[in-house]
Amino acid sequence: MKLYDCAMAPNPRRLRIFLAEKNIEIPKIEVNILEGENTQPAFLAVNPRGLLPTLKLDDGTCFDEVMAICRYLEALYPWQPMLGRTPLEQGLVESLQRKAEFEGMIAGSEVFRNQHPKFAERSIPGGGGQLIPAIPGLVERGRQTIGRFYDWLEAQLQRSRYLVGEQMTMADVTAFCAIGFHAWIDISIPAGNSATLAWYAALNARPSAAA
Amino acid sequence: MKLYDCAMAPNPRRLRIFLAEKNIEIPKIEVNILEGENTQPAFLAVNPRGLLPTLKLDDGTCFDEVMAICRYLEALYPWQPMLGRTPLEQGLVESLQRKAEFEGMIAGSEVFRNQHPKFAERSIPGGGGQLIPAIPGLVERGRQTIGRFYDWLEAQLQRSRYLVGEQMTMADVTAFCAIGFHAWIDISIPAGNSATLAWYAALNARPSAAA
Repeated sequence: MKLYDCAMAPNPRRLRIFLAEKNIEIPKIEVNILEGENTQPAFLAVNPRGLLPTLKLDDGTCFDEVMAICRYLEALYPWQPMLGRTPLEQGLVESLQRKAEFEGMIAGSEVFRNQHPKFAERSIPGGGGQLIPAIPGLVERGRQTIGRFYDWLEAQLQRSRYLVGEQMTMADVTAFCAIGFHAWIDISIPAGNSATLAWYAALNARPSAAA
Repeated sequence: MKLYDCAMAPNPRRLRIFLAEKNIEIPKIEVNILEGENTQPAFLAVNPRGLLPTLKLDDGTCFDEVMAICRYLEALYPWQPMLGRTPLEQGLVESLQRKAEFEGMIAGSEVFRNQHPKFAERSIPGGGGQLIPAIPGLVERGRQTIGRFYDWLEAQLQRSRYLVGEQMTMADVTAFCAIGFHAWIDISIPAGNSATLAWYAALNARPSAAA
C-alpha cells in the first residue's frame, strides 16, 4: 500500500491525523498541489481526477476521497475507531463529518480557490487537467457558509466534549482541519466561541495534530 | 423511527431506493421542498438546516444526510448490503458514491438551483431560512462537471456490471438518481453511452425505482 499525499493541503491532513490516531503507517509519496503537480500527466496516470489523497493498493487498485480511504482502513484495522462504534454513532459521525466537510472544508476551498491566482483555472478539485475558471461570487457565499459552520460547531461543543459524544472521531478531525485551513483565508474561531476554542486547543495538543 | 421525506426530490429518492432494496419500512412525513416548506419554522424545529431526508429516532435524536442515514440503517439491518461487504468494497462504494454525488447530484443541483426562480434566494441546500442568492456562473460550471460525470460513468460501466463489481450498491443508486434529476435540467445520458443506457434500464426496471 502507498499513499499519494500533499503535506500542505487540508484534505490529506485529515487522513494523516486519522492514521496517526490509529497508529497506522503507510509509505507516502509527496505531490505538490499548489504548483499543480496533481494536474500533470505523471499523477493523472495514477488518478485521472488529480485528487489527493489517493491510496494505491499492492494489487494496483487506486481510489481517492479521504472518507473512502478511512472507511477501508477502519474496516481493516478496527482498533481506535474513528467512524463510530454503535450504529447510531456511525450514523452521527457520518452526518456531522459531512456537515463539517461541506460547510467548513468545502466552503473554505470555495473561498480560497476562487480568489487565489494559482487556482484561477482550476476552481474546483477533481477536474483533472480540465480548465475550470474561478467564480468570484463564490467567495462571499463561502464566507457566509463558514459563518454558519462556526455557529453550529459552538452549539454542538457546548453540549458535548467532541462532536459525537465523548470520543474523538472523524467529525472532529474534519472540523479541526477546516479551521486550520481557514487561516489561509484569514478566518479564525470567533473570540466568543469558548467551547470551540477549548476543543481546538485540546485537539491541537495531541501528537496527531503534527501529522 | 420516522422519516421526513419529499417525494419529488432527488436526494430523498436515494434513501427510498435504499430502503426498498433492503425491505425496510419506515413511516414517512412529506415535506414540500419546491414550495419551501423545509425552510418554514415547523420543519426547522425538526432540522435547523432544513435538509431532507431527516431521520427522527424514537428517543428524539434527529439527523440528516442520506449517506449518514444509510450508514445507520446498514449497521442495524445488515442484510442485502448496499455499502459494500469487504473492506475494499466499502472503500470503493464510498469513493464512487461520492464521485457520483459530487459530479452528478450536486452539480445537477448547482445547475437547477442557480437558474430556477423558486430557488433564487436559496441556491444551496442546508442554509435553513438564510437567504443565499443564486450565482448564475454556476450553471455553466455545473454542466461542465456533469459532462465529466457521464464520461466517467460510461468508462466504469464498460468494465463492470455495476459501479462496484457485480452487486448494486449506493454508488449505483446515487448515479441513477442523479440521472433522473438531470431530466429537470434537460440533460440525459449521451446516446452513444451504451453501457450506461443498459445499466440505467436495468435499474429502472427494479421495483425499487418506483419507491
